[in-house]
Amino acid sequence: MKRIIAGPNAVIESLRAKPGAFEVVYLADGIRSSAARRVETVAGRARVPCETIPRGALDIMADKLNHQGVVGITGAYPYLDLAGLLEIASRRDDPLLVVLDQVQDPGNLGAIIRSAHALGAAGLILTRNRSAPVARGAVRSSVGASELTHVARVTNLARCLDELGETGYRTYGAAADGETNLDDVDWSGPCALVLGNESRGLRRLTREHCDQLFAIPLDAEFDSLNVSAAAAVALYAASRSRGRP
Amino acid sequence: MKRIIAGPNAVIESLRAKPGAFEVVYLADGIRSSAARRVETVAGRARVPCETIPRGALDIMADKLNHQGVVGITGAYPYLDLAGLLEIASRRDDPLLVVLDQVQDPGNLGAIIRSAHALGAAGLILTRNRSAPVARGAVRSSVGASELTHVARVTNLARCLDELGETGYRTYGAAADGETNLDDVDWSGPCALVLGNESRGLRRLTREHCDQLFAIPLDAEFDSLNVSAAAAVALYAASRSRGRP
Repeated sequence: MKRIIAGPNAVIESLRAKPGAFEVVYLADGIRSSAARRVETVAGRARVPCETIPRGALDIMADKLNHQGVVGITGAYPYLDLAGLLEIASRRDDPLLVVLDQVQDPGNLGAIIRSAHALGAAGLILTRNRSAPVARGAVRSSVGASELTHVARVTNLARCLDELGETGYRTYGAAADGETNLDDVDWSGPCALVLGNESRGLRRLTREHCDQLFAIPLDAEFDSLNVSAAAAVALYAASRSRGRP
Repeated sequence: MKRIIAGPNAVIESLRAKPGAFEVVYLADGIRSSAARRVETVAGRARVPCETIPRGALDIMADKLNHQGVVGITGAYPYLDLAGLLEIASRRDDPLLVVLDQVQDPGNLGAIIRSAHALGAAGLILTRNRSAPVARGAVRSSVGASELTHVARVTNLARCLDELGETGYRTYGAAADGETNLDDVDWSGPCALVLGNESRGLRRLTREHCDQLFAIPLDAEFDSLNVSAAAAVALYAASRSRGRP
């Protein structure tokens, strides 16, 4: 199924024909055209969320389509497989990937996708089981970033981590009891940041297949960060240590 | 109204008598007592969320009460006024406060409270108008941190920032167009980190009453971070630059 629908008229027609197929409609920041207002009305009736995002993001989503400030996102997310993601990542120098071990809250997933994109990750890897899908909640909370980055799904995360290692990636897992301080992680070269489920953290097998486990130094000893806060902090630390942007 | 109810029997009684008064029930991580299971059942019937958190957090919440791994949170949040918060913060060396200019999503507020507590902030300041309250959604997503930190509400945020300045705090606002890079912010001495609303950012008056506006360096030029991700990143940068923990 077509995923990107560009332009107010195409979006309105599709919203009327198949409202249930829509994840979200994106409008360009500050758009005031009457067509855009009509889109909002029709989307509102169909209970499809409308979000405003920067026009530059719409340009990339719509590729060369004439979007006039309106893009609808429909249908299933175009997940890659691991080989496809690694191929795309290899076009960058020293790519950074984000690996999520059963993150289950769509809001967390969307926020992590957004931070990963904004802080320079080349893409994300999710587990096929017990992960929030890149569907309405996550698409929405990513504020468009889900359409601008690349996401692969894998069945066996431990094997995926081994494959990353064989491809030259170092794999760093976030764990409250990690032996390394986040400040001391070596983010040079191809790297993968591995983050765990909201309540259980990383699974045992996942931990064992990471090259290193690191902890974010905290003031409150019994406290921890939300997984999307931990992702933002680690991605920021990686981006600074890699001297980017 | 009593806010902390400690112990399984007291919590079950109160849940039966006044389920609507409850924000959340906290259980100690790993608790397996039959009393705790009964609490979960009764809370489930009353549609009150149950969350598990570390026992150390329960000890602090319950002060010297005998909680046996179960604490219920009821009633209105005990907000401080600015003077009260400054008094508590002054007991620390070089306190760091987090100021939120109309953050409206309870999940974001809770995540920011959690990050602020974990990364060493002395407390938070919210606007009285157009802010999510420290109520069920935020209490829950803070995973207990709302009961361990201090939150003040103010009516006039610009005047509050001036008062912070007169008390010796430097006030740093996060803004995509901030002239300073986050890495160059001087976090020594008493500081306030000021963060804006999810879609509008800082209001004009808020910007004008900050000592400095800083930007988080991002890879994707038209993108930005979720406010709770931005909070985590800035709090982490502050904590590292202050040499803590």
